[in-house]
Amino acid sequence: RVDGKRLWDSLMELAKIGGTPKGGVCRLTLTDLDRQGRDLFISWVRELGCTVRIDPIGNIFARRAGRNPDLPVVQTGSHLDTQPTGGKFDGNYGVLAGLEVLRTLHDANIVTDAPLEVVVWTNEEGSRFVPVMMGSGVFIGEFTLEQALNAVDREGISVREALNAIGYAGTDQVAGQPVDAYFEAHIEQGPILEAEDTVIGVVTGALGQRWYDVELTGVEAHAGPTPMPLRRDALLAAADLITTVNRIANNHAPHARGTVGYMNVHPNSRNVIPGGVTMTVDLRAGDDATLTAMDAELRSACADLNRFGVSSQVSQVVYFPPQPFAPPLVEAVRDGAGALGLSAMDVVSGAGHDAVYMARVAPTAMIFVPCKDGISHNEIEDAKPEHLEAGCNVLLHAMLARAKV
Amino acid sequence: RVDGKRLWDSLMELAKIGGTPKGGVCRLTLTDLDRQGRDLFISWVRELGCTVRIDPIGNIFARRAGRNPDLPVVQTGSHLDTQPTGGKFDGNYGVLAGLEVLRTLHDANIVTDAPLEVVVWTNEEGSRFVPVMMGSGVFIGEFTLEQALNAVDREGISVREALNAIGYAGTDQVAGQPVDAYFEAHIEQGPILEAEDTVIGVVTGALGQRWYDVELTGVEAHAGPTPMPLRRDALLAAADLITTVNRIANNHAPHARGTVGYMNVHPNSRNVIPGGVTMTVDLRAGDDATLTAMDAELRSACADLNRFGVSSQVSQVVYFPPQPFAPPLVEAVRDGAGALGLSAMDVVSGAGHDAVYMARVAPTAMIFVPCKDGISHNEIEDAKPEHLEAGCNVLLHAMLARAKV
Ligand SMILES: NC(=O)NCCC(=O)O
Ligand SMILES: NC(=O)NCCC(=O)O
Repeated sequence: RVDGKRLWDSLMELAKIGGTPKGGVCRLTLTDLDRQGRDLFISWVRELGCTVRIDPIGNIFARRAGRNPDLPVVQTGSHLDTQPTGGKFDGNYGVLAGLEVLRTLHDANIVTDAPLEVVVWTNEEGSRFVPVMMGSGVFIGEFTLEQALNAVDREGISVREALNAIGYAGTDQVAGQPVDAYFEAHIEQGPILEAEDTVIGVVTGALGQRWYDVELTGVEAHAGPTPMPLRRDALLAAADLITTVNRIANNHAPHARGTVGYMNVHPNSRNVIPGGVTMTVDLRAGDDATLTAMDAELRSACADLNRFGVSSQVSQVVYFPPQPFAPPLVEAVRDGAGALGLSAMDVVSGAGHDAVYMARVAPTAMIFVPCKDGISHNEIEDAKPEHLEAGCNVLLHAMLARAKV
Repeated sequence: RVDGKRLWDSLMELAKIGGTPKGGVCRLTLTDLDRQGRDLFISWVRELGCTVRIDPIGNIFARRAGRNPDLPVVQTGSHLDTQPTGGKFDGNYGVLAGLEVLRTLHDANIVTDAPLEVVVWTNEEGSRFVPVMMGSGVFIGEFTLEQALNAVDREGISVREALNAIGYAGTDQVAGQPVDAYFEAHIEQGPILEAEDTVIGVVTGALGQRWYDVELTGVEAHAGPTPMPLRRDALLAAADLITTVNRIANNHAPHARGTVGYMNVHPNSRNVIPGGVTMTVDLRAGDDATLTAMDAELRSACADLNRFGVSSQVSQVVYFPPQPFAPPLVEAVRDGAGALGLSAMDVVSGAGHDAVYMARVAPTAMIFVPCKDGISHNEIEDAKPEHLEAGCNVLLHAMLARAKV
């Protein structure tokens, strides 16, 4: 069993780095605060005798040797970077749960057959540099190291410059090493476990995602003298599209999602009929056939907006196919919860995680624990110590099942 | 008959003050450009022997004496200030049409019984200082001089300071003088005259207006893990309200209008369900019973948004009752068009104008002429010289009908 208090104390100590007055954390990727968080993690794993490798995109691999150096590694990990108004647990929990597993084995003098690794992935959040999940994306070859290094933030600073500035432009070539299993513990970031009063979410896979930019063009005109039938109101068309996006997702219940999160109105003046709207659409589904059907429904809804005298332009900017996790690893998580007598249920991850990329190159599974009101990406993000401890015990159990003692 | 070329040339000369590369005008109220426009107007009326009075809010009254100094004045006027990306005609046309009437009488050595006045109202547009129609509003006592003088722009400069800086803080007490008639010529700012191929709009009155700020509060949550039925999406509720505002206006055709022109989404991030929306609603109608019914329909629609789990707060920020114009003056405009053999039709002003305030204290009417594609508050605002000339001839005819020769 892991030490829940030590896990919690470490989370709280880490949360001081970039801690905000409202109790959240602002530790943007590749800033000096990120460096301090990384340094603290490395000091902790060095105390356990781990070797540390850093690859050229700044991913950190802390390895605890196994009895048999030829066996492929059993990994866990997550990220230390946060949203600008993020919380203490998103990502950080997965890294420190891995640390707590190593500490527990260290205290008990247990040596596994296979080596273990805790990975810190660079820039999962994507708030400062796009694309999101950059470190794991480079690791699995979704995009090239060069593409990632050349990404710039709003100040024009590149990933390359930022990595050098904090001393985390590593030279270790880790990508390509055989991986036996990748586990990631994470807060759920959704409301289901709490609503079901369940401690462990056995994550069977992740929803597929299609993200779009939509541009609507009507004609700007004075709100007073322009009769209703002569209007070409881009915001009225946008309202219709928002309602349709919601209907599309509801028609593909229960695993489909449809969200318009961003909208910009032009000229945005109270007595001017809007001539232009820029908006985003985020569609998610559990299987690719559904996601493809939703894509077609969205595109036909956009074309239909011409009945408002409004033209539309739709461009897809992100595509993640639905990602099932590896059944044997999912089973290991389910077994762990069972062995520990914890309430558990199968869930699907609605959000993207580094595990979603890792699942393309190695057997992968995730462990979810509840978070308060399902809220994350928010300074008020919260989770219960006993739930975090329970998830960490499941992680320990699952990793040992793979790495063998 | 007026001199259409002289009117056009004067409009083009005035348009150079604050002229933009795109052919529009940016001459914000009480700036040095506004001073240059006012100075030019005053130099022109002084050439005609007019006396000039300036009141404490900076309204300019250029008077051409009549035969009988005891008769109440026959006025016309409009404004010289423009929107930040405004055109050459909005407001400016009404002032220079008045000037052209005086020039025509001057050239023909005609003396009217009653005195004539051309008025330049301060800050009609309200882009720099709110409230809009400030000069005419103070003049008729809708709000106090002190309130107006204390209004500040985004830089913190007050109307008082700005008036002093350009030398237009006058000391003449004009408000309260008896006014026999107030006429205002204006571009239509709407598409009807052009669509009907008609030169003169005989304006029978102005729509009533109610403006609102609406605040919607839902719950911000992650777009991926949050199932559709558990969402409290403020933007989805806003979309429903936009559609309803449109339906309310359509249900009260033909003179009702309903517009959402402004919307601000929080946190406005593509993978976050919006937790808050701030938006405006602009309702207009030809009679107060309809406007009151629309108000009730809006408020009930807002309350109904709780079916999305979203709460709403509605505050009315502006109310103009519908304003019928004085039948004898409307008739004078109609007669003028008839006598001149111009195509004419009755129209209602959808927009607010200084004339709407003046109608509360004096018999008032307006003359509309077509503008290209019904577009104004835009640098591409355009109007035909022959239409501007025709409207000016109608103004001359109507003013002479009241002032008598
Ligand atoms: N875990 C997480 O917040 N990922 C961001 C990408 C997404 O919206 O799924
Ligand atoms: N004429 C004009 O644009 N007035 C502004 C107020 C309104 O929206 O009616």
